[in-house]
Amino acid sequence: MKKHNFSAGPSILPASVIQKAADGVLNYNGIDLSIIEISHRSAEFIEVMENARSLALELLELEGKGYTALFLQGGASTQFLAVTYNLLESKAGYLNTGTWSAKALKEAQHYGEIIELASSKDANFNYIPKNILVPANLDYMHLTSNNTIFGTQFKEFPKSTAPLVCDMSSDIFSRTLDFTQFDLIYAGAQKNMGPAGTTLVVVKDEILGKVSRHIPSMLDYQVHISKDSMFNTPPVFPVFVSMLTLEWLKDLGGIPAIEKVNNDKANLLYNEIDRNPLFKGFVPNSEDRSMMNATFTLTQDNLKDTFDQMWKEAGINGLNGHRSVGGYRASMYNALPLESVATLVNVMKHLETKA
Amino acid sequence: MKKHNFSAGPSILPASVIQKAADGVLNYNGIDLSIIEISHRSAEFIEVMENARSLALELLELEGKGYTALFLQGGASTQFLAVTYNLLESKAGYLNTGTWSAKALKEAQHYGEIIELASSKDANFNYIPKNILVPANLDYMHLTSNNTIFGTQFKEFPKSTAPLVCDMSSDIFSRTLDFTQFDLIYAGAQKNMGPAGTTLVVVKDEILGKVSRHIPSMLDYQVHISKDSMFNTPPVFPVFVSMLTLEWLKDLGGIPAIEKVNNDKANLLYNEIDRNPLFKGFVPNSEDRSMMNATFTLTQDNLKDTFDQMWKEAGINGLNGHRSVGGYRASMYNALPLESVATLVNVMKHLETKA
Repeated sequence: MKKHNFSAGPSILPASVIQKAADGVLNYNGIDLSIIEISHRSAEFIEVMENARSLALELLELEGKGYTALFLQGGASTQFLAVTYNLLESKAGYLNTGTWSAKALKEAQHYGEIIELASSKDANFNYIPKNILVPANLDYMHLTSNNTIFGTQFKEFPKSTAPLVCDMSSDIFSRTLDFTQFDLIYAGAQKNMGPAGTTLVVVKDEILGKVSRHIPSMLDYQVHISKDSMFNTPPVFPVFVSMLTLEWLKDLGGIPAIEKVNNDKANLLYNEIDRNPLFKGFVPNSEDRSMMNATFTLTQDNLKDTFDQMWKEAGINGLNGHRSVGGYRASMYNALPLESVATLVNVMKHLETKA
Repeated sequence: MKKHNFSAGPSILPASVIQKAADGVLNYNGIDLSIIEISHRSAEFIEVMENARSLALELLELEGKGYTALFLQGGASTQFLAVTYNLLESKAGYLNTGTWSAKALKEAQHYGEIIELASSKDANFNYIPKNILVPANLDYMHLTSNNTIFGTQFKEFPKSTAPLVCDMSSDIFSRTLDFTQFDLIYAGAQKNMGPAGTTLVVVKDEILGKVSRHIPSMLDYQVHISKDSMFNTPPVFPVFVSMLTLEWLKDLGGIPAIEKVNNDKANLLYNEIDRNPLFKGFVPNSEDRSMMNATFTLTQDNLKDTFDQMWKEAGINGLNGHRSVGGYRASMYNALPLESVATLVNVMKHLETKA
């Protein structure tokens, strides 16, 4: 059966990427060896790594603008720490808009003064704070562009004279933005870019080298930059599949092309959530709603078993909401086709006729 | 052409594992989804992770002995730091037997007093130091069991009242040992266990929780233990393929069975290196020689081009030595068949007839 994969991450990848990934595992480019059993210092893998790095910059339109792309390990959770080590001298500002931004803040607190510039915790993170006052003399300001669990997303970003650091794990490569407003972007691959196991870091070189603390080698961006993202053995397969996904996105027309599809998907689903009396969006303010993760609940609890059975029978996977929110979460990352959202919307309409 | 893959790492994996890995990428266990696009919280992946963790303990005969197995990210290079954070209160001892042990020592130096207990640097690391005096009151002692670059290997391990920490990246699961003599073992997967992108950590629980320093979450073994090795999204595919490789090893008869094959391979090659006047082993003392990585040079430099052409024509891959040693390095990890070593030995004999 055709599956409609709404998993929040690791999540759906393009079918053509899955096929090429499997081919590369069996025999990479006809060299009679698997991509996972060749040296990372081989010409073949160096090409993969360089390709992935330059595609990332190209798609974000950051080529030639003083940025470097790295494919590291350890997830965004390791970047919470790396950001701190590389940028925090005395004081940084954090926006607290959900579980992941709170975790980032918590890791940083051991290394300097961390100011919570704004928080939406008072309403279980169901909105994006506005009109944020940013004090002068911050070493950097940190935010999470898309809150996977709660389904909110920054549409505009606060201005700061300090470097702007953004965790884009769940919406990178999904929408056009002026990416030069960020000085450091990081993103775990497993939502919009590839399989779990690698993390993209895009950093403006000029913000580095300004702290006095000792930085451990594996957390030091300048070490990774000086070694072309191969200070130690990189996560070969996750980088390879990320490269394939970025190639797929480029062939499709890049971020402007996928943004249009993503808007169509999100509009289709949110319109149904708002129209159908059996459903209620978790995020009341439509401008704060995530185009990637739509969170919603049933208005009648007694319909739960019926609805759950219906979407499962339709081949839908991964629709259960996170325990912090309850209800449902439809993750509509780049690789999810419009057809899958249409299938979900049809199930929602069908539930209405049965209720 | 059939390739004989002597790559030092990432390195050869069993053919059956490669096939199952590719199958899992296309459609995992018939669920109509790829292993790389399902949630790491799904029943399917939790089973993979738990399987991999318990197989690791079972094969090392450490089940029920107070140890926990974790599959983390960041390579052995991240463990250099994690070991320090988790175990170093004031003073630790390091054995310096090659590039990687020196790097481990260097990372630790920023966090306490590090004593180099012994070093073989005086002879470009071509031997294993013996009769090491271990002072009392160390927080731990650290060593590298197998030196991939230089081709040396500890056959017996120094005794210490302090916890013994061992980087086994290049010989884990290759030979029978009393693994209870170690309190912490770590190993990057990409040699004897799986693809690049995950690192096995096997730790005796009772050595943890004794330092006063703050440990960042991602480096804290107790955090990872409390979350069953899923504090954050784990590297799904590398863990999956590591599990497949550990299953292959178990089916084969475990470590005792593979040790016999590894001994046969190493004996075959070292006998030829010692017999053939055209070759010279880099490690003079046979008891210090690695059963995993045999390092050797030509005795006549002018034969280099001929020899290189001959082994490449025989389908041999990855035989060039590391720049620190020069010459050649034959890495004979678990998945390399005896047939591949026989092919190399035949080429060496053939060179002799031509010289």
